[in-house]
Amino acid sequence: MRTVAGVLEEALSRLFGEPIKVTGAGRTDSGVHATGQVVSLATTASFAFERLTLALNALLPDDCSIRESCAVDAGFSARFGARARTYIYAILNRPQPSALLCRYAWHVPHPLNPSALRAAAEQVLGEHDFRAFCGSLPVNSAGEPASTVRTLSRFDIEQRGSLLRLELVADGFLHRMVRMLVGTVTEVGRERRRPAEISAILARAERAAAGPVAPGAGLYLAGVRYADGYDSFAEPPALGPPTPNLD
Amino acid sequence: MRTVAGVLEEALSRLFGEPIKVTGAGRTDSGVHATGQVVSLATTASFAFERLTLALNALLPDDCSIRESCAVDAGFSARFGARARTYIYAILNRPQPSALLCRYAWHVPHPLNPSALRAAAEQVLGEHDFRAFCGSLPVNSAGEPASTVRTLSRFDIEQRGSLLRLELVADGFLHRMVRMLVGTVTEVGRERRRPAEISAILARAERAAAGPVAPGAGLYLAGVRYADGYDSFAEPPALGPPTPNLD
Repeated sequence: MRTVAGVLEEALSRLFGEPIKVTGAGRTDSGVHATGQVVSLATTASFAFERLTLALNALLPDDCSIRESCAVDAGFSARFGARARTYIYAILNRPQPSALLCRYAWHVPHPLNPSALRAAAEQVLGEHDFRAFCGSLPVNSAGEPASTVRTLSRFDIEQRGSLLRLELVADGFLHRMVRMLVGTVTEVGRERRRPAEISAILARAERAAAGPVAPGAGLYLAGVRYADGYDSFAEPPALGPPTPNLD
Repeated sequence: MRTVAGVLEEALSRLFGEPIKVTGAGRTDSGVHATGQVVSLATTASFAFERLTLALNALLPDDCSIRESCAVDAGFSARFGARARTYIYAILNRPQPSALLCRYAWHVPHPLNPSALRAAAEQVLGEHDFRAFCGSLPVNSAGEPASTVRTLSRFDIEQRGSLLRLELVADGFLHRMVRMLVGTVTEVGRERRRPAEISAILARAERAAAGPVAPGAGLYLAGVRYADGYDSFAEPPALGPPTPNLD
């Protein structure tokens, strides 16, 4: 299967003349997009690193691009150094689908009530055991079960034209956590569940209690924040014009 | 070759149980998008036309969608009844490409001067023989050469983040006219040509005088206006959120 990491590793291995493995800061399943992914890698190759962005973009296919690159301390890991991740989810909420957004937003034709969505989102803010909103349970490096407790510091819902823009920030996300949270609050938005049910789902801590998994096409890993304050955030183009200049 | 018209005719022929041909209001070459295309068709089939939009969207592939449909007078032609067409062209103007916009905007890494672009655009406003900006010359229904005179009533250039949004309105456009105009004014924006050269190109009326043809990926047929005031305009999603409700 073709993956972003695979395509990137192939280009980097060609540039550096040695096999390169990258470590990504956040997961992106099949069909999921990223405007703010961060990857780290180690190499002993000599290369004019100030030209790495240009050289990589020249080698990469059109559907995978580099915004910027820089040298870091030897111990740096894009994954383990990350303090917070921002995911954005786009819902097209109108009766008709949009051909141009078919791969970039989830089409929900039923009217969604933004205040019900917001009330549902509020229930999951803060530190919780998110086991109910987890695809495959996490394991540590020794293969033992790891914690499913995460702190969700933001779950904002904003209307932009016929698009709903959901922004979620947490210290980390479990497998499919964003898509399961979005699928569940959308049921509240459709008024099929009451906002208070969300707390009950959290408390039951069983996957069966949660709503459906929202499709990958609406999801964007939009930014990763590090201890030094660096944040890779970039708005997905479907939700607004891209940032002026990335240099 | 798979075309939007072909995909649409196949779905309509299935729905109506007879072969259907559609007439489109504006051209969209391969790779070109449309948010405001209008098509007309004739059928004697009995069908609950108020449900046509829903039925068509259920049958069409995800990358082709219908916004609305209505019954019209028997003589109506989406093409010949059109009074004005609006095309929008998106240019991503920053050093780095964007994976998410690779099929939806033309990536121009060299800095473009918006006021030079505007000065160039002004030169082509109004009624002109646009022969210099024409791919294949038009013919009438008898196969004889037709007029290459068109009236360009708008050529606006606006910056939205790192995107440039070019909007062109005319009574009609020649084959590749928008892409050749955009390719040529972009040379002025790069300060490779002076704005005044555009008038000279118009006057020479030779295709060789014009600049390169801008790629199809940045181009959108965004709206078609009719004598009764109806305008199908819709903003391309890459340039802003889609309109709230199309009913």
